Amino acid sequence: MNFSSKLLEQAVDEFGRLPGIGRKTALRLVLHLLKQSNTEVSRFTQSLNNLKENIKYCSTCFNISDEATCEICQSLKRDKLTICVVEDTRDVMAIENTNQYQGVYHVLGGLISPMDGIGPADLKIEGLIDRLRNGEISEVILALSATMEGDTTIFYLYRKLKEFNVQVSTIARGIAFGGELEYVDEITLGRSIATRVPYERNVG
Amino acid sequence: MNFSSKLLEQAVDEFGRLPGIGRKTALRLVLHLLKQSNTEVSRFTQSLNNLKENIKYCSTCFNISDEATCEICQSLKRDKLTICVVEDTRDVMAIENTNQYQGVYHVLGGLISPMDGIGPADLKIEGLIDRLRNGEISEVILALSATMEGDTTIFYLYRKLKEFNVQVSTIARGIAFGGELEYVDEITLGRSIATRVPYERNVG
Repeated sequence: MNFSSKLLEQAVDEFGRLPGIGRKTALRLVLHLLKQSNTEVSRFTQSLNNLKENIKYCSTCFNISDEATCEICQSLKRDKLTICVVEDTRDVMAIENTNQYQGVYHVLGGLISPMDGIGPADLKIEGLIDRLRNGEISEVILALSATMEGDTTIFYLYRKLKEFNVQVSTIARGIAFGGELEYVDEITLGRSIATRVPYERNVG
Repeated sequence: MNFSSKLLEQAVDEFGRLPGIGRKTALRLVLHLLKQSNTEVSRFTQSLNNLKENIKYCSTCFNISDEATCEICQSLKRDKLTICVVEDTRDVMAIENTNQYQGVYHVLGGLISPMDGIGPADLKIEGLIDRLRNGEISEVILALSATMEGDTTIFYLYRKLKEFNVQVSTIARGIAFGGELEYVDEITLGRSIATRVPYERNVG
C-alpha cells in the first residue's frame, strides 16, 4: 500500500495487528475513526486505556471483574459447591446466556498448548486446586473446547482433580440441536452413537 | 451479552461502533488487546490520537497528508495539467498501485448522496473549481464508483466543469479482466456492448 501519510500508516499498522483484521479492513476502520469527532475518537481510546489500567480479575475465579471479587462469586444465589472450569471470560458469558447453570466458575485464562508454548503453569490451575483444598466442592465441570488443546487440558486437570473427593464431569458432546445427520462429521457421529443416552434422560 | 465488567462492556461498545464489527468480534478484539502488554496497548491508542491530532489535508488536492502539501502535489515528475477526481484517499492508493497514472488528484471526501444528507456543499467541489479557474488544466478524469451516488456526482461535476475549456472524461466501465461473460450482470454486459471499442484501441 502506498500511504500518503506516515501517521495514517502507523494507525493502520496497529489495527492490522488485531486478530482477523487485514490491512484493507484496518484502513477502512482508521478512515472511519478519522471522520469522527475528536470527542468520539478520544472516547474510543479512553475506553481502552481505562480497561487496561483499571481491570481486575476476581481473586476467586479469575474472571474479568471491576471489583476484587466478581458478581457471580459474590452472589448468595449461586451454588458454591459446583465449579465450572472454562477457558476464558467469553465462555462464562456464553454459559450465563443459557440460564442453565447456577454454580460458580473458574477461568483458566487459556488451554494447555505445547505448540504455542503454553504449559500448565501459565494457567490458573493452582488457584483451582486451592479452591478444592480449602472449600467443600462437590463437583467440577470441565467445560472446555472439543479441540486437541481442550482435551489435553481436560486430561491434565482430571489427573490433578482425582486426588480430591470430588465428582469430575465434562459437558456432553454430540450432534448439535438442529443439526442434520448427513452434515455431521464422522468422529462426532461415531462418538454420539457410542455415548448414546436412554431416551428418558434426554427428555427429563 | 452478560458482561462481568462495566469497563469491558464500554470498550466492547466502542469497538462495536466501527463499521462491519459486530459485538462478538468487538469482544474478541478487546480481549486480545487486554492480553497485550501496557506498552502495546498505549502504542495502539497513541497511534490513533496522533493521527487524529496531527493529520493534515493537502491544501491543493485535499488528500490525507503529513504536510500542508502532499507528496504527489509536490512532485516535479507528476503532470499537473491532468486532475483525477476521486471519492477518498483509498481510491488514490488504489490508482497509485496501478502505476498507470502520472497526473495529480482531487479528493472530494465523499459522494453526493441525498439519502445520507450529503450535498455538493459537503464535498471539496469548490476547491476543484478554484484549481480550474487558477491553473491551466487540460483534462479532468472522474474516477468515481459506478453506483447511484457516483453517477449523481459525475452528472453534477460534469455540468459544473463544462463551463471551463477542459476535457472531462470518466474511467472506462465494462467487464473486468478475467471476468467470465456468463457471470456478468445484464446492465454491465449491455453497456459494454453499446460502448464497444475498436480492437486496435484495446491492444494499443
